[in-house]
Amino acid sequence: MQITKEILEKYARVIVKTGANVQPGQCVNLAANVNQYAFATLVAEECYRAGAKKVNVEWSCDPLSKVHYLYQDTEVMSETLPWEIAKMEQNVKDLPVRMLIMSGDPDALADIAVEKLTAVGRARRQVAKPYRDATDGKEQWVIVALPSPVWAKKVFPDCSEDEAMQKLWDAILMTVRVDEENDPVADWKEHTDLMGAKANWLNQQKFKALHYTSANGTDFTVTLNPEAKWGAAREVNPVNGAYYIPNMPTEEVFTSPLAGSCEGTLVATKPLSYQSQLIEDFSITFAEGRAVSWQARKGEELIGQMVAMDENAAKLGEVALVPKESPVNRTGILFYNTLFDENACCHLALGAGFKELLPNGNDLSPEEALAHGVNDSIIHVDFMVGSEDLSIDGVKADGTLVPVFRNGTWA
Amino acid sequence: MQITKEILEKYARVIVKTGANVQPGQCVNLAANVNQYAFATLVAEECYRAGAKKVNVEWSCDPLSKVHYLYQDTEVMSETLPWEIAKMEQNVKDLPVRMLIMSGDPDALADIAVEKLTAVGRARRQVAKPYRDATDGKEQWVIVALPSPVWAKKVFPDCSEDEAMQKLWDAILMTVRVDEENDPVADWKEHTDLMGAKANWLNQQKFKALHYTSANGTDFTVTLNPEAKWGAAREVNPVNGAYYIPNMPTEEVFTSPLAGSCEGTLVATKPLSYQSQLIEDFSITFAEGRAVSWQARKGEELIGQMVAMDENAAKLGEVALVPKESPVNRTGILFYNTLFDENACCHLALGAGFKELLPNGNDLSPEEALAHGVNDSIIHVDFMVGSEDLSIDGVKADGTLVPVFRNGTWA
Repeated sequence: MQITKEILEKYARVIVKTGANVQPGQCVNLAANVNQYAFATLVAEECYRAGAKKVNVEWSCDPLSKVHYLYQDTEVMSETLPWEIAKMEQNVKDLPVRMLIMSGDPDALADIAVEKLTAVGRARRQVAKPYRDATDGKEQWVIVALPSPVWAKKVFPDCSEDEAMQKLWDAILMTVRVDEENDPVADWKEHTDLMGAKANWLNQQKFKALHYTSANGTDFTVTLNPEAKWGAAREVNPVNGAYYIPNMPTEEVFTSPLAGSCEGTLVATKPLSYQSQLIEDFSITFAEGRAVSWQARKGEELIGQMVAMDENAAKLGEVALVPKESPVNRTGILFYNTLFDENACCHLALGAGFKELLPNGNDLSPEEALAHGVNDSIIHVDFMVGSEDLSIDGVKADGTLVPVFRNGTWA
Repeated sequence: MQITKEILEKYARVIVKTGANVQPGQCVNLAANVNQYAFATLVAEECYRAGAKKVNVEWSCDPLSKVHYLYQDTEVMSETLPWEIAKMEQNVKDLPVRMLIMSGDPDALADIAVEKLTAVGRARRQVAKPYRDATDGKEQWVIVALPSPVWAKKVFPDCSEDEAMQKLWDAILMTVRVDEENDPVADWKEHTDLMGAKANWLNQQKFKALHYTSANGTDFTVTLNPEAKWGAAREVNPVNGAYYIPNMPTEEVFTSPLAGSCEGTLVATKPLSYQSQLIEDFSITFAEGRAVSWQARKGEELIGQMVAMDENAAKLGEVALVPKESPVNRTGILFYNTLFDENACCHLALGAGFKELLPNGNDLSPEEALAHGVNDSIIHVDFMVGSEDLSIDGVKADGTLVPVFRNGTWA
């Protein structure tokens, strides 16, 4: 597809109108990479057209981030300054719509010591957590992606830069349902209605647990949370009643399982990009609800650091079902980007769960939600387990089994 | 000249080592346009190599600024939020080195109503002023420029974009004394020593006033401030004794005249880019030290708004002498950018003066400096009067005249 101004405007519009669903008078915080300033400006303009009061753009710059990590002391980088806290306080007051345009280099920080990344990330997230908790579930938010030359070359190493950019554009626009002919807003309505129906079916089944098996070695049971609903695609901001779609693309039906109640081994089917580094060919074994051992061909030590981030980082916060017919999976591409790769197949996440899936969950503190079985942690890391032959059975309260997935898709 | 990585690194190095003269342990605030993120990253790395503790990059984006002005309410734009004030407080504490890489579109905001630009600028500057006053004279700072396609095409409208960029690069590198062969740090030492000698001569003369005449209609007398010294090129940060060069290029020997004491008419010899709009073919007449009337072929109303910004905006804060042999003038280019255009020829500035030219001036508040005759205002706007035939006489206390400039250059 030729990437015309019209296509870019169409993409910007569906992000703002369907994804974030910006309402008149709202503030918007838009995070974007400096190399995408032209598209970020288009998105900002669409926000204003939708009636935004103020669009605050937070720029990131991969090569600069690398320079900071290379030269700045860990202690200096870890410190959150008073003005940064004042900015978070402003967000608690304004409850801005949050938008993230991802377009970075997946390997930007590959040369940086894991210990430094972990120390800085943990220190800053601990300070930020109460402010994030205070806005969590009260804001619309959306994450989308744009190709960048370095990302495109990572995904298509054998193509020229121009070819790689074109292929990545084509793949992204296909998965976010934007083309020359269609009305993306209408297509997204149909798609999210269908996904909502799947979530409703799962909610009616009231499964006690899910049991995963695959010839790759996966044999795993996770207890579901009787209080937590299944969700899909569309969410609602309880503050103003606006529907929004946090991820574009989105193909997952998901819930938060009962924190600390799962057993067995999950074998990952795709690499995991964590703190800009890759973990490859790995499996994680759980006992009494916690990750207790893991193996990886590459990045094994990263898993250890990840699950030690805090008390509950070794417990699960998310279970998500994605059929192998997902458009993301049909591209056949490993995007090295969770936004896409998690929408290619079934996955789970270590760390924080989704308290908004509990009744009145948005009014609960993270500690209160944890008392209702929804995990709380400073991390949330998705990893993929959707093998071609994946079977998932729903376990009813009386022990009867209901096929949910067979051969990697809805049974 | 071919713009190689080596040339860019050489330019970045002379900016950091000679311009800002970053010292070990200092914080740096670097302002740059998003379209120059690669060069900004080079400069940040040079700062860290010089021992900077932390480099905070503040990104600007011209097309986004325009969108903000087009859609955001004046009231919303004018408000300085608590976190922005906290950031200014942090600057008062850290006294960071300030660096600005200009690379914008001179016409970025040309479509925006002057009233809106003025109202927003005034409101934000009024809040920022006490914080700026608290750091003024206690920080090293440097302003430099990089070509951007839109600026290059503005300067060279008849060239292709590539040709225009090359010509603007050549002009900038010539004026900042960077080429393949030279040692820019040594060349800058020689240049600033020479300029220092001119300033010393003027300080020894103790002129009471300067009298300007030109065939273009300029006939103007300004009373000098007996307490204020003449300065040139190099300044010293009294906090740490570090020498720095606020402007690169720099060709001016300057002082702050006695605020509110000048008479006659100055005819501008170059257009003035003010709030991203052009004022062309203008003259300003002063009586009893204040601008009282003005004429312009274009942008006349902007002059009126400028001198009405606050009580002292109609008074002069700067008198600067630049010979017509200046490298900036020799390029023959109108840069549409004061950093260059003010270093092409003699100029004066409406608005704030330089309190650091007073004895112990850095310890004075702006009000105290005003009591010593150095103007105080929220604006500082340079305009050029350096005609080819410009004569300037120094008037001694006994009324004798000493030629300072003849035919646009040192007598």
